[in-house]
Amino acid sequence: MKLIDGKAIAAQIKSEIAEEVQQILAQGGKRPHLAAILVGHDGGSETYVASKVRTCEEVGFQSALIRYEDDVTEDELLKKVIELNEDPDVDGFIVQLPLPKHISEQKVIETIDYRKDVDGFHPINVGRMSIGLPCFVSATPAGILELLKRYAIETSGKHCVVLGRSNIVGKPMASLMMQKSDPGDCTVTVCHSRTRDIKKYCLEADIIIAALGAPGFLKGDMVKEGAVVIDVGTTRVPSDQTKSGFKLKGDVEFDEVAPKCSFITPVPGGVGPMTIISLMRNTLLAGKKAIYCK
Amino acid sequence: MKLIDGKAIAAQIKSEIAEEVQQILAQGGKRPHLAAILVGHDGGSETYVASKVRTCEEVGFQSALIRYEDDVTEDELLKKVIELNEDPDVDGFIVQLPLPKHISEQKVIETIDYRKDVDGFHPINVGRMSIGLPCFVSATPAGILELLKRYAIETSGKHCVVLGRSNIVGKPMASLMMQKSDPGDCTVTVCHSRTRDIKKYCLEADIIIAALGAPGFLKGDMVKEGAVVIDVGTTRVPSDQTKSGFKLKGDVEFDEVAPKCSFITPVPGGVGPMTIISLMRNTLLAGKKAIYCK
Repeated sequence: MKLIDGKAIAAQIKSEIAEEVQQILAQGGKRPHLAAILVGHDGGSETYVASKVRTCEEVGFQSALIRYEDDVTEDELLKKVIELNEDPDVDGFIVQLPLPKHISEQKVIETIDYRKDVDGFHPINVGRMSIGLPCFVSATPAGILELLKRYAIETSGKHCVVLGRSNIVGKPMASLMMQKSDPGDCTVTVCHSRTRDIKKYCLEADIIIAALGAPGFLKGDMVKEGAVVIDVGTTRVPSDQTKSGFKLKGDVEFDEVAPKCSFITPVPGGVGPMTIISLMRNTLLAGKKAIYCK
Repeated sequence: MKLIDGKAIAAQIKSEIAEEVQQILAQGGKRPHLAAILVGHDGGSETYVASKVRTCEEVGFQSALIRYEDDVTEDELLKKVIELNEDPDVDGFIVQLPLPKHISEQKVIETIDYRKDVDGFHPINVGRMSIGLPCFVSATPAGILELLKRYAIETSGKHCVVLGRSNIVGKPMASLMMQKSDPGDCTVTVCHSRTRDIKKYCLEADIIIAALGAPGFLKGDMVKEGAVVIDVGTTRVPSDQTKSGFKLKGDVEFDEVAPKCSFITPVPGGVGPMTIISLMRNTLLAGKKAIYCK
């Protein structure tokens, strides 16, 4: 069994990005610039955005944090989105989700210029990904692909079972794994809450990508010998072993499953650290106009 | 075994659409207007477009056929697309594919205003379909969904195996069948040229959607008792029994497979007739501004 060390890979990519930024600057190019809009004071969102801003600094990006109180109107937020769309200095930006209930997340996402949509949530980027065209791939799926690539995990012709059909992980992951590409070229099965006998599918899988948000869902007797298991779950569960009183638990019962795997990601330290770094990479691509030329 | 009569369903929907057009006109509304651009003189394309124009007349739509010779420039074609985008009288339009090699099909598709993209090929419509938002669903997948619906075929919790991962059938079909909806809510497996032991997956399937374009691929010993089989294949094969010297053959070895099925579509007369009618329905929706309000 080989542990997939997302933390180490993320650190490696971080230094690759930092190096490329230095090269760009040395050649007189423009420093990539990521802006983030944060509405309200949700604890999780605060942490994520702070981490994104910090990582920007670490790789040498310019960053901007735009904050609004919970009572910001949809109009006001949309006006800011349009302003960022039109600001030639901003290469990419994100609006941290979730948003307060009185604001339509979908409307906000669709107002973002898809060429600056480094979160990859705009329907144009989702559609282009499905068709197999260059696009911003959203951070978690992009991070998982990168892990498979860096560990040289063979995917072609393998049976990949995706647990979960969310718009931000399950569906794009299925789409990417079936694509004619490497990683990719898998036979893909998508399981979800309506699937009968989910264990049967899991037992047939060469690669399992677990993104149900159900802590400890995947047990040892659901996985075949030699499987590759990618755990996307990160649920906060109470713990008496941490200072905070909780710990992150994945969808995989790690202790049972790991001994049977050829490769497995831990939680934390697996997929998680790749997410922010994928956002950084999208920002770099945006800065270089590598996906969309204008 | 029950034969799914696509021809009869298509005729039924055609009269429903014709009736709705009459109601719209009676209420002083605007007659839906579909325009089609045809480049060159490819036999298949000529037939399809002629059939689309004829069906428009039959349901009471206004139609326009814009023809170009094979040597039309990409610029000229794009100019016409933009003109149709801006023409308030045209509710929807299609550019018949394939296009000559010197023209980028993708560029043409992406130039079409997605709100008039009744073929559902624009990345915005593809992405919105994947996310589960209102959109123009492309004709063949929409037609298949409609057949499942009209025959009240239960899909929730069933295992649907899609054979083929094309952008116009396999991928959207997979996306629709996994969606939280009815029809939908299937566990979905996508098989393709790189799949190992495709027979194994087919034998496990409750519903098989065959869209490989490989005549007679699905044999009797690849299907379990009681399966629902949807045959999307339409390959021209030589025949000494028809005047034209060829006949359409599906991906399914009908004589072997049909006796084991609960439901099956024939070729011809199954999925085929639904395709044009789905385009008509999208045009009606476009005319009513039912998907996009402006």
